[in-house]
Amino acid sequence: MQIIKSIQKMQSLASELREQSKTIGFVPTMGFLHEGHLSLMRIARNKCGILVVSLFVNPTQFGNDEDLDKYPHDFERDQKLCKQEDVDIIFSPNVDEMYPDSFFTYVDVTGEMTDVLCGKFRPEHFRGVTTVVAKLFNIIRPHISVFGQKDGQQLAVVKRMACDLNFPVEIIAGPTVRESDGLAMSSRNKYLSPEERTAAPILHQSLLFAKELIDSGERDSNRIIAMMRKLIEKKSLRLKIQYIAIVDAETLEPLEQIRAKIMVALAVFLGNTRLIDNVIIEVGV
Amino acid sequence: MQIIKSIQKMQSLASELREQSKTIGFVPTMGFLHEGHLSLMRIARNKCGILVVSLFVNPTQFGNDEDLDKYPHDFERDQKLCKQEDVDIIFSPNVDEMYPDSFFTYVDVTGEMTDVLCGKFRPEHFRGVTTVVAKLFNIIRPHISVFGQKDGQQLAVVKRMACDLNFPVEIIAGPTVRESDGLAMSSRNKYLSPEERTAAPILHQSLLFAKELIDSGERDSNRIIAMMRKLIEKKSLRLKIQYIAIVDAETLEPLEQIRAKIMVALAVFLGNTRLIDNVIIEVGV
Repeated sequence: MQIIKSIQKMQSLASELREQSKTIGFVPTMGFLHEGHLSLMRIARNKCGILVVSLFVNPTQFGNDEDLDKYPHDFERDQKLCKQEDVDIIFSPNVDEMYPDSFFTYVDVTGEMTDVLCGKFRPEHFRGVTTVVAKLFNIIRPHISVFGQKDGQQLAVVKRMACDLNFPVEIIAGPTVRESDGLAMSSRNKYLSPEERTAAPILHQSLLFAKELIDSGERDSNRIIAMMRKLIEKKSLRLKIQYIAIVDAETLEPLEQIRAKIMVALAVFLGNTRLIDNVIIEVGV
Repeated sequence: MQIIKSIQKMQSLASELREQSKTIGFVPTMGFLHEGHLSLMRIARNKCGILVVSLFVNPTQFGNDEDLDKYPHDFERDQKLCKQEDVDIIFSPNVDEMYPDSFFTYVDVTGEMTDVLCGKFRPEHFRGVTTVVAKLFNIIRPHISVFGQKDGQQLAVVKRMACDLNFPVEIIAGPTVRESDGLAMSSRNKYLSPEERTAAPILHQSLLFAKELIDSGERDSNRIIAMMRKLIEKKSLRLKIQYIAIVDAETLEPLEQIRAKIMVALAVFLGNTRLIDNVIIEVGV
């Protein structure tokens, strides 16, 4: 396993690998790896000759009042986990090389897709995500790249970006990996107090509840959202719902009536920790 | 010479050529080729095994009140000229395939660089340019790409974009090609009436005048600009100066005092036709 910090070195290596007709699989991460990340690596590992994982806490996707400075990290542990997953290359650049003072270019998915859900509350977040992903695609030049379904809006936005800008990269969705009680794995779960951790599975429970309602024939989004809200609010006063939304799974257009392939998504604060989760549901016509 | 319209076909071919270790040179154009474009092709031809030229009138770089609909075109003539320059591939996609209804992603060089000079008067122009160039780079995957110095701000902005987003493409500047009387070649010269055509070389003359002033020791940008303005306004009442500016050649930062490598640039209306021109000047420290 190679650890590469230099952009230029990574680019030359990617170029060499391409000329040797190797298939490059890529999993971008912000480090502090958990089973969710590892599951994405396994998907890429099975499909590609070369597996590249990036460890980079991307400053442009954090708001000014967000947790950039205290975002958890443990490079030694990440490195060990990557080795266990048979990763070929860890790409771990410095912030100053990724964003020098002269940096001015952003990649932006405009319109409703980035205004709804998390985008409503994190106005420049997705611009930061699509910008760093575009950079990483140009540096690593993967054939496929795997993103977690857990960050459902991110997945849809990255797919849109890659398609609109004609990146020759296939975007693959990896299923959300959950703790035994249903809590979606996230590096931010580490922030939860024991009490908050006990309450946290309610996010997933509310999504399962929504699925049951839809399975039993409910098609009115507002009614489903209202019932989810009640369920969550009953659980604990420490839970603050930021949003619950039902949107088209691909375009993220908010839907009043459930149809075709939808995403039910929510963001909830547990104390100061903001957790997100979602499910994709397909209904017959 | 192959003519390719399909994005997917161009992408597969680029991928094949890359695997055969061919060097791909790329000259993006909006067609209606003139000697300026051909000179860029010759630069790329000399450096690369495969020469790709795109012919695509890019709607996203035109403002609502601009000349998109009447932009001149002559595909048959362009094709003949490309053949004469030993072009291997013409890439000429449809607007609907480049920008389907679901298109939402833009690449934007933010900040002063796109706010000055032409950017001040054509607010979304450079966003359109950088977006289409990013798309074309991903479709054609060139090793080098040649842009004309005549569109000096475009060249600087594209360089910035390619560098910021880590596109593995070397951007090369091709010198401005001029008519015998000094008028910079441009597809828009076709719009000029005989009277306007006679007056048009004043743009270049004013730039040569600026160079003479600087050579003779003048370092005050405002004084130089004022003298250029007088020279142009004396020429004809039909000339309307949109801007004259002296900026750092790389960052495009406006300079009050001439230093290092600068660009003197201007845009002038002759009737309804807007012409631009520039010179790069280096002064000792």
